[in-house]
Amino acid sequence: MKVVIIGGVAAGPKVGSRVHRICPDAQVTLIEKGEFLSYAGCGLPYYVSGIVKDQKELMSTPIGVVRDSVFFRNVKNVGVLNRTEATKVDRKERQVTVIALESKKEEKISYDKLVFATGAQPIVPPIEGAHLGNVFTLQNIEDSESIKTALSEDKAKDVVIVGGGLIGLEMTEALAKKGCRVTIIEKLPQILPILDWEIAHQATQYLETRGVKVKTSTTLTAIRGEGKVSSIVTDKGETPCDFVIMSIGVKPNVYLAKDAGLEIGTMGGIKVNERMQTSDPDIFAAGDCVESVHLVTGKPCFIPLGSTANKQGRVAANNVCGVKDVFPGVLGSTVCKLFNLNIGRTGLGEEQAKQEGFDVITVLSPAPDKAHFYPEAKPIMIKMVIDKNTRRLLGLQAVGLGVVDKRIDVAATAITAKMTVDDIARLDLCYAPPYSPAMDNIITASDIARNKLDGRFQSVTPMEVKEKIDRGDEFVFLDVRSPGEYETTCLANSTLIPLGKLRSRLEELPKDKEIIAFCKISLRGYEAAIILQAAGFDNVKVMDGGVVMWPYEKK
Amino acid sequence: MKVVIIGGVAAGPKVGSRVHRICPDAQVTLIEKGEFLSYAGCGLPYYVSGIVKDQKELMSTPIGVVRDSVFFRNVKNVGVLNRTEATKVDRKERQVTVIALESKKEEKISYDKLVFATGAQPIVPPIEGAHLGNVFTLQNIEDSESIKTALSEDKAKDVVIVGGGLIGLEMTEALAKKGCRVTIIEKLPQILPILDWEIAHQATQYLETRGVKVKTSTTLTAIRGEGKVSSIVTDKGETPCDFVIMSIGVKPNVYLAKDAGLEIGTMGGIKVNERMQTSDPDIFAAGDCVESVHLVTGKPCFIPLGSTANKQGRVAANNVCGVKDVFPGVLGSTVCKLFNLNIGRTGLGEEQAKQEGFDVITVLSPAPDKAHFYPEAKPIMIKMVIDKNTRRLLGLQAVGLGVVDKRIDVAATAITAKMTVDDIARLDLCYAPPYSPAMDNIITASDIARNKLDGRFQSVTPMEVKEKIDRGDEFVFLDVRSPGEYETTCLANSTLIPLGKLRSRLEELPKDKEIIAFCKISLRGYEAAIILQAAGFDNVKVMDGGVVMWPYEKK
Repeated sequence: MKVVIIGGVAAGPKVGSRVHRICPDAQVTLIEKGEFLSYAGCGLPYYVSGIVKDQKELMSTPIGVVRDSVFFRNVKNVGVLNRTEATKVDRKERQVTVIALESKKEEKISYDKLVFATGAQPIVPPIEGAHLGNVFTLQNIEDSESIKTALSEDKAKDVVIVGGGLIGLEMTEALAKKGCRVTIIEKLPQILPILDWEIAHQATQYLETRGVKVKTSTTLTAIRGEGKVSSIVTDKGETPCDFVIMSIGVKPNVYLAKDAGLEIGTMGGIKVNERMQTSDPDIFAAGDCVESVHLVTGKPCFIPLGSTANKQGRVAANNVCGVKDVFPGVLGSTVCKLFNLNIGRTGLGEEQAKQEGFDVITVLSPAPDKAHFYPEAKPIMIKMVIDKNTRRLLGLQAVGLGVVDKRIDVAATAITAKMTVDDIARLDLCYAPPYSPAMDNIITASDIARNKLDGRFQSVTPMEVKEKIDRGDEFVFLDVRSPGEYETTCLANSTLIPLGKLRSRLEELPKDKEIIAFCKISLRGYEAAIILQAAGFDNVKVMDGGVVMWPYEKK
Repeated sequence: MKVVIIGGVAAGPKVGSRVHRICPDAQVTLIEKGEFLSYAGCGLPYYVSGIVKDQKELMSTPIGVVRDSVFFRNVKNVGVLNRTEATKVDRKERQVTVIALESKKEEKISYDKLVFATGAQPIVPPIEGAHLGNVFTLQNIEDSESIKTALSEDKAKDVVIVGGGLIGLEMTEALAKKGCRVTIIEKLPQILPILDWEIAHQATQYLETRGVKVKTSTTLTAIRGEGKVSSIVTDKGETPCDFVIMSIGVKPNVYLAKDAGLEIGTMGGIKVNERMQTSDPDIFAAGDCVESVHLVTGKPCFIPLGSTANKQGRVAANNVCGVKDVFPGVLGSTVCKLFNLNIGRTGLGEEQAKQEGFDVITVLSPAPDKAHFYPEAKPIMIKMVIDKNTRRLLGLQAVGLGVVDKRIDVAATAITAKMTVDDIARLDLCYAPPYSPAMDNIITASDIARNKLDGRFQSVTPMEVKEKIDRGDEFVFLDVRSPGEYETTCLANSTLIPLGKLRSRLEELPKDKEIIAFCKISLRGYEAAIILQAAGFDNVKVMDGGVVMWPYEKK
């Protein structure tokens, strides 16, 4: 069996290795346009920052063996044609035309099974100056070398990151660590559009404490300079800068597949079935060039990630070899480190869930990530999105200095298993003070969701409260923290009655007005609502997330 | 409604708080024998070590409010009788007799619903000297204070920990940090009997590098001294020591429940149904005094943990208030920090699964916990136990300097959802280099399990190989690492052929003998087996876990 794989970065080498393991006699050829094979694209920002010292580390096995063409031939029995571009697929003749980039020699390679692993490429907007010197995208090893070289030569510097997505933020950290002054410009009203606004806002506030400027609702219109960039122009004006990273997103590389007449999906990626098979049964595709199915909505989505590419590569290889295997889909699980801040998400965000027609409730739950008395405990904030009808968890987002990836992974597992918040609240997660609170944050958040679903209390979001204040609505904004906490930070328009005094000061509160109780995290706010309801106050709500998750100005 | 709760440490206060939230008019009385309420028993070792500075931190809310009787009255509307012992329950009259420990005043308290939250107590073996000075158990705040006082007065140096379970190990770290020389004695052949031998053995080896002596298969027979301990006697001899911590286990406090005629389960705990209801429908029980159902076996088990106590307390309270709620059971999920080593487990161990009649396969998979090129990556070793028939994950254990609690929690969620290793391998876990490899360790381990289940390779455990060597079996023990790795550490009786040279040196290997291939972690061992099988060698196996998980002597 002749297997030809186009693309040698993530999914492609995985397909090759796996085919060799299952069908050792298969003749496998891997075609890669670039010099380098099987490298960790996700590690590029860390190579730019210097956290990863040597580019070889990105393309080595954990033992330190570089995965080059000799390695693939000797160990995996995979023939590699690198610096070689596939230019045409003839499905009738089952041939791929390739051209060696140096010699310009063209040849045709026959296949029995063909695999597209052509990846994705950064989107560069069609604006003036997009190709000036010191305007970079970050896609491959070569890009990272160019950025490193430019940084060392130019001793910059004012850097503009265009696009506040994951790569933009990872590059923000990398360049700030290199001593650059970084400004992020993002055309949407928030950075990290994969997060709901109030969670993304925590990242924005954090970035500002690290000296990074964040300009949202700002659209790049031109890049100016002579040879090299000297300024960028947006709809808000012109700003001088020495260096631009374009990270507005990526698009799947489907030109060759399209040209070969393969079906392209609604999200622009190669369309594949669960077996990673394209519309041609002898052609498979995996990795950033395909679109996947979202496990919650069942709809197509384009979420290119290295972890997904690896899993899809295995499934494609199995099916190439006639071993049935399926890749059911993704949840868009993501995690990102931003200096010391951890940010993660999985499943559907609130807006996304609403657009899909779910009737949702949400929970905002801030708490320490470990037993609160354990000195290394650090805060994390969780937002959960729950389907009101089925009580199923639809999505979870988390941000904080504490551990978020653990909660994302538990949530991803729970969502995959279609667990309700009741199921999650009962999970036997491991506990010891250095690892989690006795009730893990995700269990506490699930219990809050259950209280809401069961009508034990009414809640409002900080955003809803802000609207009320802005509208001039009359209500009591009841802070039940201690006087000491109130003195340090307080919210405008609030009234302080510490929880411990509430029972004895009930007469200070009006029974005919809405009362919105809160505290630092709104656990005491919840206790206060219970006390007030028992005392005959019948219009009491609790503000989700408390002072900690209030995303607006605090006094 | 009058609700009386006996026990004020973990489950009891949770029941009280929750009852107040659901039925604010209920009259709730909490009876606690000790002085202190609602403290984190799991935090006591960290208080002894000084990591937690003030005992108040263990009984405070995250905001720093001490949960004393005033707090419970003002905030939770729960009346507290501390330093008060419940001595009798009259189920017919629905009364609890209590005696105030100071005044010796006896009174009877009526209840509509009664909750046992009487906890567990350390087992003290009935041997000579068990009550000498400087022989301690660690159960409550008072114990930790006594230990701290004795440590500061006596400058105790030679400490013996009797029992190598979780509390024993946490105290090992605490006392070593206080400058003590610590010896653990354990009557079983291994410490940490909740782990399989080869995983527990990793902890033993680590402890030895930290200067802790571990004596297994050693039974305590007496403690000697005049007033204070001066030596301990075991079946292996007498050892001088200044200080003894007894941590051989705990037993549920069921005397009062038994005396009241409530049913006691086969594991010795109070028997409850899913609603945490005892054999008397008006009496509930929660926390360390009850036995639970194991979610994999469906059988009763006694696994006292603070996390479980909290969850059970909530369920008991809901049902006390007439709100139906269930606690389905536990997986024995556990995590423990031992200096810098992380140890965790969930579900069934290998032996346990076999005893339950499962036909299992196991996987030993060591790998870095983060992208291997990320400088903070540290190794962890995973052992998975899988049911051969259903392909379901039954249990997972992990040990290492890297992050294990995340993998335990994902496994606990997956086991609860009855996931197969195929399901787990497809999970969309979050990935970025600072958090995990592109294929998370638990996904890699699942893929290895799938390869085994699908018959892609035959494996042997290090223990099986050791038996072969000891028996003098003839086989080729094929190390396919690099010469450099081989020079640093190698296993006796092994033959080196680096993987990259294997194809060209096949004639050095006999076709008529069994070949057992391995490398550092046995991924290259697996590649070698594939190459050999393709070349017509038909008796090839791979040694699970490689050199890293070889628990015996290395050269």
